[in-house]
Amino acid sequence: MEAEKILNDRIEKATQNLIPLEKMEEEYAKLIENGAKKGADSYTYRVKNQTPHCKFGEEGICCRICTMGPCRITAKAPRGICGCDVHGIVARNYVRFTAGGTATHSDHGRAICHTLYEASADGNYHVKDPEKLMRLAKEWEIPTEGRDIYDIAHDAALIGLEEYGKPFGFQRFIDRATPERKETWIREEVAPRAIDREVSTDLHMTHMGCSSEAYALIRQALRSGLSDGWGGSMMGTEMSDIMFGTPMPIDCEANLGTIKADYVNIMVHGHDPSVSEMIIYYSEDPEMIQKAKDLGAKGINVVGVCCTSNEVAMRHGISMAGNFLQQENCILTGAIEACVVDVQCIFPALGPLSKCFHTKFITTSEIARMPESQFIQFDPHTAGRDAKKIVEMAVENYKNRDKDSVYIPDMKTKATVGYSCEAIVKQLDTVTNSFVDEIGTYKPLVECVTSGVLRGAVAMVGCNNPRVRADLAHISLMKKLLKNDIILVLSGCSAQAAAKAGLMCKEAKEVCGAGLKRVCELADIPPVLHMGSCVDISRMMLLVNYIARDWGIDVPQLPILGCAPEWMSEKAVSIGNYVVATGIDTFLGIVPYTSGSQLVTDILCGGVEDGVQSWVGAHFFFETDIDKLGDMMIERIEEKRRALNI
Amino acid sequence: MEAEKILNDRIEKATQNLIPLEKMEEEYAKLIENGAKKGADSYTYRVKNQTPHCKFGEEGICCRICTMGPCRITAKAPRGICGCDVHGIVARNYVRFTAGGTATHSDHGRAICHTLYEASADGNYHVKDPEKLMRLAKEWEIPTEGRDIYDIAHDAALIGLEEYGKPFGFQRFIDRATPERKETWIREEVAPRAIDREVSTDLHMTHMGCSSEAYALIRQALRSGLSDGWGGSMMGTEMSDIMFGTPMPIDCEANLGTIKADYVNIMVHGHDPSVSEMIIYYSEDPEMIQKAKDLGAKGINVVGVCCTSNEVAMRHGISMAGNFLQQENCILTGAIEACVVDVQCIFPALGPLSKCFHTKFITTSEIARMPESQFIQFDPHTAGRDAKKIVEMAVENYKNRDKDSVYIPDMKTKATVGYSCEAIVKQLDTVTNSFVDEIGTYKPLVECVTSGVLRGAVAMVGCNNPRVRADLAHISLMKKLLKNDIILVLSGCSAQAAAKAGLMCKEAKEVCGAGLKRVCELADIPPVLHMGSCVDISRMMLLVNYIARDWGIDVPQLPILGCAPEWMSEKAVSIGNYVVATGIDTFLGIVPYTSGSQLVTDILCGGVEDGVQSWVGAHFFFETDIDKLGDMMIERIEEKRRALNI
Repeated sequence: MEAEKILNDRIEKATQNLIPLEKMEEEYAKLIENGAKKGADSYTYRVKNQTPHCKFGEEGICCRICTMGPCRITAKAPRGICGCDVHGIVARNYVRFTAGGTATHSDHGRAICHTLYEASADGNYHVKDPEKLMRLAKEWEIPTEGRDIYDIAHDAALIGLEEYGKPFGFQRFIDRATPERKETWIREEVAPRAIDREVSTDLHMTHMGCSSEAYALIRQALRSGLSDGWGGSMMGTEMSDIMFGTPMPIDCEANLGTIKADYVNIMVHGHDPSVSEMIIYYSEDPEMIQKAKDLGAKGINVVGVCCTSNEVAMRHGISMAGNFLQQENCILTGAIEACVVDVQCIFPALGPLSKCFHTKFITTSEIARMPESQFIQFDPHTAGRDAKKIVEMAVENYKNRDKDSVYIPDMKTKATVGYSCEAIVKQLDTVTNSFVDEIGTYKPLVECVTSGVLRGAVAMVGCNNPRVRADLAHISLMKKLLKNDIILVLSGCSAQAAAKAGLMCKEAKEVCGAGLKRVCELADIPPVLHMGSCVDISRMMLLVNYIARDWGIDVPQLPILGCAPEWMSEKAVSIGNYVVATGIDTFLGIVPYTSGSQLVTDILCGGVEDGVQSWVGAHFFFETDIDKLGDMMIERIEEKRRALNI
Repeated sequence: MEAEKILNDRIEKATQNLIPLEKMEEEYAKLIENGAKKGADSYTYRVKNQTPHCKFGEEGICCRICTMGPCRITAKAPRGICGCDVHGIVARNYVRFTAGGTATHSDHGRAICHTLYEASADGNYHVKDPEKLMRLAKEWEIPTEGRDIYDIAHDAALIGLEEYGKPFGFQRFIDRATPERKETWIREEVAPRAIDREVSTDLHMTHMGCSSEAYALIRQALRSGLSDGWGGSMMGTEMSDIMFGTPMPIDCEANLGTIKADYVNIMVHGHDPSVSEMIIYYSEDPEMIQKAKDLGAKGINVVGVCCTSNEVAMRHGISMAGNFLQQENCILTGAIEACVVDVQCIFPALGPLSKCFHTKFITTSEIARMPESQFIQFDPHTAGRDAKKIVEMAVENYKNRDKDSVYIPDMKTKATVGYSCEAIVKQLDTVTNSFVDEIGTYKPLVECVTSGVLRGAVAMVGCNNPRVRADLAHISLMKKLLKNDIILVLSGCSAQAAAKAGLMCKEAKEVCGAGLKRVCELADIPPVLHMGSCVDISRMMLLVNYIARDWGIDVPQLPILGCAPEWMSEKAVSIGNYVVATGIDTFLGIVPYTSGSQLVTDILCGGVEDGVQSWVGAHFFFETDIDKLGDMMIERIEEKRRALNI
């Protein structure tokens, strides 16, 4: 305890950038209180109304797959009407949960492919990273010699789109994995076929009167997940980089204090950068800025929320107002002129909430239609016009702001974001002796780990979930792992949790153990590396496979783990499945709806000899005690180190 | 009442073929009672254990789409934690229910395409209807001149497979609809794109934080359904006909009495005829029959259950042992040597149940893996070997039959089945004066309706559901409609309900009103026309569109309705959506999980001006009082007649 105090003092002195969770919570409470005066609802109230949750649902033992039911498993009723037992019901629900995630992530990737397919030199969308496009063209054997870059881009987009529905073969991207991984997937019959086919297979297998055998169902959940991670999500990342640029380290700011009192504030929220990129473009349009000034504002300020925030922070340094459970708080400041959303993780609550203020709530995708919103459908051909219209609406709405009900908490941190694989390799090259060593590899990182300066790495990802105090699990786990010389790569809402708390800046090295601190100093990096949005967990998969390749061992041997301490969405379960299937042990702080079946839990968590561990060399760990979860991760990393004799 | 008594007497005298439901129920009760002595479970017991059902689930107001919940809408909690209101939750659940059905039907179609892709002159699967293949080749512009029939078949199969995942364009089959229908679908943005894409869109739209707007969600449910009916299901029907022959009228027998005491009995159950066709082939193999005789049996008897039964009855005259809720009864006879299943609607209960007897329960598809079954995976290349092995296993299992515990109810009816569109046109040609009229049209049928000899037609389809007395709704509705001169086309479990009760034979004309009776006599048809399995509802869609074309009016004007009085599966909801979207009013005797939202109910059932009725010209009717449902249908048909001035 004494040592901890000394460390904390040192940290506090060394960096002014940290914001304690308690401080944030105080401010959120004020916002909610102020909002209540205007009739604003809040998720905190709704959580109370919805508690306690249905135990049957929580345990995954309720089946609504046909209208003979719904059926619920109890001691008196050990089987559903069709005769399905509890393991079948739980496993089917798990597969369907996965399916929702696979479809959602991948459809995001598909939308990006469609946008790239419409990109043109004189259109709304362009190729900003032709080098990455050329690498992909080479990988996919697309002719490039003497061709227009947009013809190549369209070929790539079309091939990408075909990955969703080709009648034969596996996902192309699995060739990027180590040969051991690819062989494992094929041998274990989890190598992903066409992405949408895996989604349909998920639903067909779980239809009334199809599969009720838990092992077969969980195997399909892995295959479905892999079609996301090594299919749809990777497609989203690749095509986004080609179109909007591959992220490189860039500074930005985070938390609610990035909303500016004297500016027109536009909040971009969702996942697909095709919308937010255009909004940013027009928010920088001198005509628009002048308009804002004419109305008394100092300019236009765009802030991001959720994964859209990750996308625009790492490519433009746009401020990260917050993560999933911050979305209402942003509106509650009373200073948001327009909340522009695309798809996923958008509270339907934002419609009615925005009505309590002057905020315009604008939906842009036919995938995410919501009541009490203004719908302006984005289309690659009209995106510029649409975005300009939205920015204009926001600017004009500035005059409707009720300045008396504005409350912007004075909380703001610095963050350095944008560590794509390309950026990490580049950073590692700076510490490579180019006279002796090959450059462009992950070997310096491997050496840090084998030498013990770093103990290992954790990929921390996922959402917020009101089942835990928002961000607490993220932040406390991060601090614990960093102190133990475990480097972190982050994405999604976990990344914003770190940024909001101040852990995503280089000064945060003070929070770290001596080894990690030294690495941060030498490589000039923060101890938590921002890798992007939730589709960008595909970057992490590549990173881990490249490390395994450069190390010369198989992925499950690496002292690298995955962790989603506050996950809530179906996407997170799809991710969990592909992370585990990639050979990475995955630690969840929220238990999926599986606790009703010991067999399903055992198959997923290494409790039976013939479960996922035996198929892919890794498994899940479920633990809601966050402190314990951290200890388990540290122990697991040390265990892997011992097995490697390092 | 007096008139009814006279009619009933007349019917009873005229036909010995009718079996009253009460008689069937008596026999089922005996089977269950006998089974209980052997420790056999039964769905009737499980229904008791599972009653009452969860009200939240029944009303569709429970959301398990993310792990912040589960959330349930109550007066105290009018919104989920994300802020979604009851309409959003109900509509999302409805879309997901549809998605399950679309994926399932369509994946069945995909499997058939894959099998056709592997068909060859010297392989296990062949082209049995080259004429139908040629018509399809012409439709799809596949070159045929001088080509091997199997090369053409493979091209057709490949194009079919591409309909599941093509990046652009609508389903090819929508060109078969009337121009009015196709225009309507495109205008209303419900024209189906790639089938699997619609499934993924269903899941993406309903993911946490995407759509919560009921209108948009229901619109997608229609589009998803259309990708089933005018996509995957139609693919299943077309390719099955090409490979196994287009059904033509054939006689068969129905009900439990078709199981033969002195024979090796093989029960085929499920949906994909690729399995059952091979089983039948080897059950007719002289070597196998001799083997059965050597073991004291008189031969090998194959009986069908569920849609597999429809497939094999209409192509081979194989007996229909029963429909969905008959599957346990078959095993309970103690006389089934092997129960061979493929996919869908197979009770997981059959595993443990078969263990109470000598019955071998054999699963054949990786889509439907079940505990306590023997798994023999079917594959186009090994199907012959696999089927032979299974038939051999069944034959050898005959010696294990405990003859003392065999009880086969003495119930058997005659049925004439196999009325594909091709068969119907052919039948109509027999009453066409070829000197005056064009042959090969549906005009004679149109004339019967316009003249009033027939009042209209009802397509009766769908499952059994223990929420109603099994088959009661089917049979009572049929009798009512027939008496009112409404001709019936049937598929799925409705067809078997008719067959079991004795309504599917030509003698059943006695049950009909005078007009329909006369039509049956002239055209030499039963008053209920068997159109096949549940994917074959696509035949009904074509039939209705061809009738509209030959009549020169739009589909919604036709006095033709759809009805699923005892439906239970997700497939049925997908079907309902495409039937309504095709312009056919659809009457359901079981309410979907939608009653929790008046808005969703109104959108579906014509309660709002801007609902599905305004989009596609038809809507749903939900009514659990079956007598009332029948009255509503009769009234609706008369209403449509009045509008046409006929």
